[in-house]
Amino acid sequence: MGVVLNLEDGKRNGASIERLIGLTKDDMARVNDLILSKAGSDVELIPQLARHLISSGGKRLRPMITLAAAQMFGYSGEGHVKLATSVEFMHTATLLHDDVVDESDMRRGKKTARTIWGNQASVLVGDYLLGQAFRMMVDVGSLEALDVLSSAASIIAEGEVMQLGVSKNLETTEDEYLSVIKAKTAALFSAAAEVGPIIAEASRNDRAALRSFGINLGLAFQLVDDALDYGGSSRDLGKNVGDDFREGKVTLPVILSYRRGSEEERLFWKRAIEENQNDDDALAKAIGLMNRHGSIGDTIARARHFGEIARDALAPLKSTPQKAALFDVIDFCISRVS
Amino acid sequence: MGVVLNLEDGKRNGASIERLIGLTKDDMARVNDLILSKAGSDVELIPQLARHLISSGGKRLRPMITLAAAQMFGYSGEGHVKLATSVEFMHTATLLHDDVVDESDMRRGKKTARTIWGNQASVLVGDYLLGQAFRMMVDVGSLEALDVLSSAASIIAEGEVMQLGVSKNLETTEDEYLSVIKAKTAALFSAAAEVGPIIAEASRNDRAALRSFGINLGLAFQLVDDALDYGGSSRDLGKNVGDDFREGKVTLPVILSYRRGSEEERLFWKRAIEENQNDDDALAKAIGLMNRHGSIGDTIARARHFGEIARDALAPLKSTPQKAALFDVIDFCISRVS
Repeated sequence: MGVVLNLEDGKRNGASIERLIGLTKDDMARVNDLILSKAGSDVELIPQLARHLISSGGKRLRPMITLAAAQMFGYSGEGHVKLATSVEFMHTATLLHDDVVDESDMRRGKKTARTIWGNQASVLVGDYLLGQAFRMMVDVGSLEALDVLSSAASIIAEGEVMQLGVSKNLETTEDEYLSVIKAKTAALFSAAAEVGPIIAEASRNDRAALRSFGINLGLAFQLVDDALDYGGSSRDLGKNVGDDFREGKVTLPVILSYRRGSEEERLFWKRAIEENQNDDDALAKAIGLMNRHGSIGDTIARARHFGEIARDALAPLKSTPQKAALFDVIDFCISRVS
Repeated sequence: MGVVLNLEDGKRNGASIERLIGLTKDDMARVNDLILSKAGSDVELIPQLARHLISSGGKRLRPMITLAAAQMFGYSGEGHVKLATSVEFMHTATLLHDDVVDESDMRRGKKTARTIWGNQASVLVGDYLLGQAFRMMVDVGSLEALDVLSSAASIIAEGEVMQLGVSKNLETTEDEYLSVIKAKTAALFSAAAEVGPIIAEASRNDRAALRSFGINLGLAFQLVDDALDYGGSSRDLGKNVGDDFREGKVTLPVILSYRRGSEEERLFWKRAIEENQNDDDALAKAIGLMNRHGSIGDTIARARHFGEIARDALAPLKSTPQKAALFDVIDFCISRVS
């Protein structure tokens, strides 16, 4: 690993987030109540659609990170519950808009909201949840937390627009791709982690540590997701192998395969990604090419690299159960694929 | 009018907003600079699309109201320029998402962003502008202004979802329709006006006065817009007569005509609004029915009613050029149609 690990903090315990779940259990119960109450509205369609999203059951990793990051610095108020809920709402709003933009029909093995209620409702309920997220943040009253989360909202949208630009563009470099996922995925992990020390009035260094943890965890998370889409393992994801391929998404495994491929292989990628020749045979061939060039393995290696940076970001902090739980999250992310 | 008017403040001067434009000229130059800078991004599509919106040239009524409302209470800082820009960004984001939801091809006589750059970019650039709006508000640092504007963001989205619900529903009552436009249009006028006294640290009563002015002005504004769509006058609007009709929108002139109509007329409305039998002949017939039942005239009468409430809301405030300019805005809104 090349990193000296504190044994207690660092031991890899079978890559589960049980410790994180345990530490944030009580707070998460309040987050879940708040989600239900703030996703409510007299306008029937809003709670209907919100219930669908809530029952779609993501792992709620981001709000748990916010809660643990606040606990870690001794925070004892109520603001972290609101901030964690805001983070989850921002995430949900992004998913709603993403599904519209990507024209996705399934997410986590369930029909997307847009296939049930239409694009219109998905756009507008996304806007509503974003508005509610900001109201909760304002309610907490920390201008610094507001600054971090509102900046993240801009950056995420910027990242999504960037992704439209690289969409179906096989000449996208790894660097360009990293810029996209840093904005569209990692920025929210980073903000989720940083608002913990902010609300706990921790030091600048502590804030920087959690911010760095979040951004690198987010990068690792997205790269593992990319690898999983080509069969790393589908047990945890609720998304089918090949979704990205069928949507013509240029992700790191594709970028590496394309850059490392022969002329003929590049022609195959162009037909698959640019001209939608992406049936099951094409998917099988794509995975074959990825294996030939080690593209999935190297995507995971890149994810590990960012995981190590996330780990080192937290290294100087004193040993706490929360620190250990955040280390677990890194291992858990990587372990989904290995 | 039934309202005792201070002669100096109240005289109707040919229904122009020249005084408002004059008073806010210097500040608006800064708003325009800020719009250009905050709509910027290294992601090329964002400034491209933003330039399109900016050159589409709305009147920028909302930010001018914010500026005048801050000046009115002696505000001398820089925050009102940022808040006014935030208000305009919120408005622009709403327009972008609206065009996607309504599948509109034209706005103010120009192609909509979605017909040029697609729905995807419109959704995402809308999200970006909303994020930038919140960043600017946070930058100003007034939690009270943040509270008002973030609440407005939720309410606007809620109103838009509500509108989906009443869409093509001819049984919508006038009350239900007023709830929709109060949320989707008037809430932003209200917030735009209220953040002026907030940032100027004016009294609770002053805040309430400007809030009430804004909400009623917004209602009047929307009702006049509804009337204009059936030919009140199209000189100012840059939208073609009949747009709402062709989109099957249930607005107040339609609601009144439907409720006042014969069985046979109601059948006509059902075919037109619910079954899209809305060619030019149908539009001519619709306008004929509206004239028969006085629906356009009464929509304008309702607008005047809210205009008078807006006027009375400001009545107790001391005479200032800004107060006179805000009275002008009421007259200007109504005069577009009469």
